[in-house]
Amino acid sequence: MSSSIGDNIKISVFGESHGKAIGCVIDGLPAGVKLDMDAVYKDMSRRAPGKDKTATPRLEKDIPHILSGVLDSTTTGAPLAMMIENTNTKSGDYSNLMTVPRPSHSDYPAFVKYNGFNDIRGGGHFSGRLTAPIVFAGAVAKQILAQKGIIVGAHIKQIGSVCDTAVDYNDISVDMLNKLSSMTFSVVDESVEEKMRAEVEKARLNLDSVGGVVECFAVGLPAGVGGNIFDAVESKLASILFGIPAVKGVQFGLGFDFADKNASKVNDEYEIKDGKVATLSNNNGGVLGGMTDGAPVVVSVAFKPTPSIASKQRSVNLQTMQNAELEIKGRHDPCIVPRAVPVVEAAVAIGLLDLMM
Amino acid sequence: MSSSIGDNIKISVFGESHGKAIGCVIDGLPAGVKLDMDAVYKDMSRRAPGKDKTATPRLEKDIPHILSGVLDSTTTGAPLAMMIENTNTKSGDYSNLMTVPRPSHSDYPAFVKYNGFNDIRGGGHFSGRLTAPIVFAGAVAKQILAQKGIIVGAHIKQIGSVCDTAVDYNDISVDMLNKLSSMTFSVVDESVEEKMRAEVEKARLNLDSVGGVVECFAVGLPAGVGGNIFDAVESKLASILFGIPAVKGVQFGLGFDFADKNASKVNDEYEIKDGKVATLSNNNGGVLGGMTDGAPVVVSVAFKPTPSIASKQRSVNLQTMQNAELEIKGRHDPCIVPRAVPVVEAAVAIGLLDLMM
Amino acid sequence: MSSSIGDNIKISVFGESHGKAIGCVIDGLPAGVKLDMDAVYKDMSRRAPGKDKTATPRLEKDIPHILSGVLDSTTTGAPLAMMIENTNTKSGDYSNLMTVPRPSHSDYPAFVKYNGFNDIRGGGHFSGRLTAPIVFAGAVAKQILAQKGIIVGAHIKQIGSVCDTAVDYNDISVDMLNKLSSMTFSVVDESVEEKMRAEVEKARLNLDSVGGVVECFAVGLPAGVGGNIFDAVESKLASILFGIPAVKGVQFGLGFDFADKNASKVNDEYEIKDGKVATLSNNNGGVLGGMTDGAPVVVSVAFKPTPSIASKQRSVNLQTMQNAELEIKGRHDPCIVPRAVPVVEAAVAIGLLDLMM
Amino acid sequence: MSSSIGDNIKISVFGESHGKAIGCVIDGLPAGVKLDMDAVYKDMSRRAPGKDKTATPRLEKDIPHILSGVLDSTTTGAPLAMMIENTNTKSGDYSNLMTVPRPSHSDYPAFVKYNGFNDIRGGGHFSGRLTAPIVFAGAVAKQILAQKGIIVGAHIKQIGSVCDTAVDYNDISVDMLNKLSSMTFSVVDESVEEKMRAEVEKARLNLDSVGGVVECFAVGLPAGVGGNIFDAVESKLASILFGIPAVKGVQFGLGFDFADKNASKVNDEYEIKDGKVATLSNNNGGVLGGMTDGAPVVVSVAFKPTPSIASKQRSVNLQTMQNAELEIKGRHDPCIVPRAVPVVEAAVAIGLLDLMM
Repeated sequence: MSSSIGDNIKISVFGESHGKAIGCVIDGLPAGVKLDMDAVYKDMSRRAPGKDKTATPRLEKDIPHILSGVLDSTTTGAPLAMMIENTNTKSGDYSNLMTVPRPSHSDYPAFVKYNGFNDIRGGGHFSGRLTAPIVFAGAVAKQILAQKGIIVGAHIKQIGSVCDTAVDYNDISVDMLNKLSSMTFSVVDESVEEKMRAEVEKARLNLDSVGGVVECFAVGLPAGVGGNIFDAVESKLASILFGIPAVKGVQFGLGFDFADKNASKVNDEYEIKDGKVATLSNNNGGVLGGMTDGAPVVVSVAFKPTPSIASKQRSVNLQTMQNAELEIKGRHDPCIVPRAVPVVEAAVAIGLLDLMM
Repeated sequence: MSSSIGDNIKISVFGESHGKAIGCVIDGLPAGVKLDMDAVYKDMSRRAPGKDKTATPRLEKDIPHILSGVLDSTTTGAPLAMMIENTNTKSGDYSNLMTVPRPSHSDYPAFVKYNGFNDIRGGGHFSGRLTAPIVFAGAVAKQILAQKGIIVGAHIKQIGSVCDTAVDYNDISVDMLNKLSSMTFSVVDESVEEKMRAEVEKARLNLDSVGGVVECFAVGLPAGVGGNIFDAVESKLASILFGIPAVKGVQFGLGFDFADKNASKVNDEYEIKDGKVATLSNNNGGVLGGMTDGAPVVVSVAFKPTPSIASKQRSVNLQTMQNAELEIKGRHDPCIVPRAVPVVEAAVAIGLLDLMM
Repeated sequence: MSSSIGDNIKISVFGESHGKAIGCVIDGLPAGVKLDMDAVYKDMSRRAPGKDKTATPRLEKDIPHILSGVLDSTTTGAPLAMMIENTNTKSGDYSNLMTVPRPSHSDYPAFVKYNGFNDIRGGGHFSGRLTAPIVFAGAVAKQILAQKGIIVGAHIKQIGSVCDTAVDYNDISVDMLNKLSSMTFSVVDESVEEKMRAEVEKARLNLDSVGGVVECFAVGLPAGVGGNIFDAVESKLASILFGIPAVKGVQFGLGFDFADKNASKVNDEYEIKDGKVATLSNNNGGVLGGMTDGAPVVVSVAFKPTPSIASKQRSVNLQTMQNAELEIKGRHDPCIVPRAVPVVEAAVAIGLLDLMM
Repeated sequence: MSSSIGDNIKISVFGESHGKAIGCVIDGLPAGVKLDMDAVYKDMSRRAPGKDKTATPRLEKDIPHILSGVLDSTTTGAPLAMMIENTNTKSGDYSNLMTVPRPSHSDYPAFVKYNGFNDIRGGGHFSGRLTAPIVFAGAVAKQILAQKGIIVGAHIKQIGSVCDTAVDYNDISVDMLNKLSSMTFSVVDESVEEKMRAEVEKARLNLDSVGGVVECFAVGLPAGVGGNIFDAVESKLASILFGIPAVKGVQFGLGFDFADKNASKVNDEYEIKDGKVATLSNNNGGVLGGMTDGAPVVVSVAFKPTPSIASKQRSVNLQTMQNAELEIKGRHDPCIVPRAVPVVEAAVAIGLLDLMM
């Protein structure tokens, strides 16, 4: 029962959607790292809602207050603690005790797990809002990785039936990643943005929502990073990525597309290139035997459609134990995927930094 | 850099393919649990090679010797240590130092990581043989789970282009799982076995190999198991599953198929059934917000085609740093998937037991 | 490099003495626990300085702000985050870079460890002020333990050459512990308070400081709590207790006094008392083989004299690498022991709760 | 409930006194470390019983079999697994179920903890025999530390009323440590050996036992090793040391002798010596603020007298819940301290290596 993760860089996430504040403590950062706080805020604003029609029109002011661990924009080696105050919450909502759980949400299992004592306002500790501290921690991790020459960036691979252009896993440029990780709507082929937005708008008009896939890359990693058996790069990254709400699948390289392939077609053969060992292809997504092989790390993350939809749904009343109908009020993202891009980047950066320390 | 895993049940796996022995230590088991060692051996024989054409004709005698933690077939509460001696290894092979890494294998990153000191004979610590202790630990875990009414079983969902019949995720019987977990070639629709075997045989005749998907189920879990954020059921299971060699993807319920779906079609609504909360469908694979919701847990695992194939491949000579060609001698599984079924069951059982303790 | 501890209850402490805030995140608390915040504040005020001549006359307002994890005075199951703002810090002090480390302080090793980037103002992350969040977490832990019938309390066993009356380790009453844990100057024999204060006053007048011993008790624990080998009750408690600044020794029961004893004199024999197994003495301090034996847990903690003294001391200049003299300005506790009592209680309570969960 | 320890070097100890084997798995060792197995065996023989009258006349053949992780006397980077077969156990003893627990032993709490299912023969998992794998792991750790210039050695500081000569904590030579760690009866002043042996012999003749103190040193550590708050050097070492049976106290430098001291007398002032920062004294035992300060690490460990004594003792019958008398058969060490020296060295070496990795 833990909101903490990491072996060398330990991150403890706290907060509830309508509580006083959310935030995190990052333990184990090296001292003396210069942090560009503007870059951190920029990543956080990529995740923040309210910017366009793909996202909820709520306005959250996610201003991170650093409580410790940073002096003169430089890490001190003490735990870096950060807090975001929850300013936009209405206590009036609190009078409505949740008795009818939202389908496909954490409501029902959380009710059972916490015997009804969990803060259910706005999803409580299970709210997507808790990804803000993850993005903060990830933005810090990305900067430390960048100082080691490791660049992380992600794009929207798919929303509904619309896909971004396929990326050559063996030829990923730092420029492309830097561009992706500065976009609000991160796609390689910018012409697909309009089609993806149309897909989301269609769902919104139908009082519905739609899922998608985020694909994340990391270049610059040396070969041999990662561990024996259970400290595999994939294990580390997956355990963090599955902590992101709505994530239902994680794969590396071809992932599930390996199932109907032959090794003769998908093995990543080697050559000497510029005096170094290089792969001729990168179907494995940069990881072999749980260790990096020097090719770009490629991980795809599947998101289910946001379960909060406006149309009427069947549910149950947990007090009366009778069937019930539910209409969810308020406005919710018809597609979480665009805002999830910096969260996926953050999770990957946190995991890679933990492996590198 | 760790071959250990688990918070409450800690499992430390040791061994190298051609070393003296492989095995594991399981720390944290409750005392007083009666173990059916025949059932353990049966699971291990499901994983053992040499039974049919889908597997390597090598004959491994995987006899587990229990060193501690069990007295009169009952756990004592001390760590359960188990060892399998490596009897079938030829020291003559050792004279060939590995200089040309096998494509898509751990060889090259392991060479870098261990500065060439790792035992490369038969894959060393990265050998698929190291899944034998995992199956042992999983078989123990399955028995303890069964005593709590939790049954785990898996089937071959796909090999190459051949798929097993689709399972209704919301209606999985204990009988089906018990049957699957006693089969050597675990499929729901037994008529697909022949087609799958044909797919494997085709690869074998082409000096090639083929990938696949194993789908695993667990029934009997109460709602509310699992943790906050990073202790999600998905995080726990994925971190163990990605420790299995050749695994490249892990998904829950619909997983990546959620990407083009609308919530109105895939949300799992609730009803009261026999006085209890039940889901009308189970597209989420029994996990919401990182916690079980009482529906069967459904997890799919993608396996890449075994990278060891007999046909000639391009590689490099790590001593001379020149391009090189490689022909892999010896016999290897043209498809690892049938033998991987008990390994996936084991990983899921280990993870669930760790969450339940 | 971690300010986090715990297996089941994970506590992450953050903050620097002159930073924006200090605090902690407590992860893993059960949901639905009613907390008496007044009792928490009371424990924190026992630790706070400024109450009498044994302590520094600085006035710290240690008002803990709960950021998450508590709703209507009841735990929600989400991580409990707490913050204390640092209000009484003067940024002007910051202009003096520390170049001459205080003897027997963390200054010099921290300078080396953090390459000079650590926040040295007021001791930074190594300040005794960081024990405030530990007391907070311990006060929460004490309440949960009390609900299980486990009571923790400590007294000043020794300051300088003055000792409190010896406690019969096998006969410790809940009343005595409740009294001790509500006192500002916790002694069993209240007549020694004056003598102890005189010892402290003598040190103060000599521009010196003096050490002491705190002895902590816990009653109500069942037999059999604790773990195998490295999860020993002693290991758990010692690892937390040694995290308290100035602690230099930890012993259980007779501890170092066992060295010249014979087993025939100090073995704790058994008898049946009121139908239960009971010990006739408790020289082992309630722990055998790393497990509780049902007798009161007794642990003593040695504190060195506060190293910050006003008299001139020899040190070095870390910039010029020349010998230097140091006179420490400001006011410091001539004896930390009275204020350390609630900190020791907290560490013991945190450790026991972690073992009990 | 764990017999595993370590963050970077993870050691999992297994076995029961009369089971098939005892041993350990050491996970996280670097690859390519040349191991001198003779030195390992030598340390193990220092711990082994049967060498003189201070120890039990039982003859244990502690031959460690390496199962994995070492090839050509060099670590491979895979977990190092080691097993010692239990050859000298008589199964006939097993017919006597333990119903009367030995006073001051783990018997009673283990009975409660494991519901009577633990292997009680010879102490089971709580036997002092389980320190053999710890010595093995420590001997490996000592070699890796020595390659970094860090030397560990310990001596018998006290047995009964006889003390070894006091060591100057600020002036400890590698030669002295190398000599101590090669002795069977490790004392600095060899003339005290006879007096200490007389103390033990006196206890033996009285059917009694006697306690003592082992003091351990480590030189060559740089300043700044160790962590924030709970990752203190003291926390790490104490948590391992308290895993050794019969240990009841751990202190650093002056430890409990600080209690009646003034800072002006015991502060460790600094000077520049040979161009480096050095302490003028080392009352803190080389640790400040949880970090090494470059002076020798000095830790003392208190051992209680072996509780197994031949004279009649009061106990209880756990089946009938009546008072009972107990006479312990067999031969036991009248003083464990001489054999404990290599165990303490091992625990310190394991802890320091874990901190250094």
